[in-house]
Amino acid sequence: MTKTSCLSRLKRIEGQVRGIGRMVEDERYCIDIVTQIQAVRAALKKVEEEVLKDHVSHCVEHAIQSGDADEQREKIAELMQVLGRL
Amino acid sequence: MTKTSCLSRLKRIEGQVRGIGRMVEDERYCIDIVTQIQAVRAALKKVEEEVLKDHVSHCVEHAIQSGDADEQREKIAELMQVLGRL
Amino acid sequence: MTKTSCLSRLKRIEGQVRGIGRMVEDERYCIDIVTQIQAVRAALKKVEEEVLKDHVSHCVEHAIQSGDADEQREKIAELMQVLGRL
Amino acid sequence: MTKTSCLSRLKRIEGQVRGIGRMVEDERYCIDIVTQIQAVRAALKKVEEEVLKDHVSHCVEHAIQSGDADEQREKIAELMQVLGRL
Repeated sequence: MTKTSCLSRLKRIEGQVRGIGRMVEDERYCIDIVTQIQAVRAALKKVEEEVLKDHVSHCVEHAIQSGDADEQREKIAELMQVLGRL
Repeated sequence: MTKTSCLSRLKRIEGQVRGIGRMVEDERYCIDIVTQIQAVRAALKKVEEEVLKDHVSHCVEHAIQSGDADEQREKIAELMQVLGRL
Repeated sequence: MTKTSCLSRLKRIEGQVRGIGRMVEDERYCIDIVTQIQAVRAALKKVEEEVLKDHVSHCVEHAIQSGDADEQREKIAELMQVLGRL
Repeated sequence: MTKTSCLSRLKRIEGQVRGIGRMVEDERYCIDIVTQIQAVRAALKKVEEEVLKDHVSHCVEHAIQSGDADEQREKIAELMQVLGRL
């Protein structure tokens, strides 16, 4: 994902969150609000996965090419933590 | 959750999404961006659960009190769908 | 899901768990073991969803037909809890 | 997790799956069956995380020490896939 596309997605998500605020203000039906929140959470998850993919192909790849074992260990530990495991 | 507290939470989340955009723009470290996205997703999930709790204590409760079996079936079907099951 | 199909699925899952034990004993490659565990977790989730679907179409439907508001409230509370929400 | 403890956990899980089969056979209350399935899924997830932790401290660590960039890339790709991301 290019930086530009990531930024435009986040811009859209920001607008969607504002939209949810309006739905709450207008006392729209709860289930519709929940459905919209779920859509935004899914959109955020997608951005997250793209940033992670970028991270692996740049920072982790950099650590591999550096041949620096300590940097590699650190990158793995970070990845595992951010992926919510271990 | 009162409407006011829900709106103020969404306002904060909107600001956090904007903050993530700035992190991307400033090319901050990927893992920090991912961590921040995860925080916003968790915050949104919390709002979602509060709206759902409200839904159950108002709309679902209303369907129960109405004694209208069809309305009750509809509420259950909606709940199951929004909870991502069945 | 009929009781018979549910039982035969559980039988298969039991065999799969035994198979994972053998993989561990044979010191098979970790990633293969993890993949197999994930398959079993997915199979269990499917049985779980089927039992839940049954529950809604029988027990919850029974509560609706009974017209007993307290029983309906109890069923909703149980559902929300088992769905891990609220 | 030692191999022995992993095996004894899997043995227990196998017994729990068999127990769920008996609950289905005895037509026990759906919610109790679902709760039990969720407990087994959680137990399996724990074994999975332990196997993964072992994997990182052995196989991934081995790839780091080998200094072999291709092996390191392969290990990362495997990890990301099994963690359900990318």
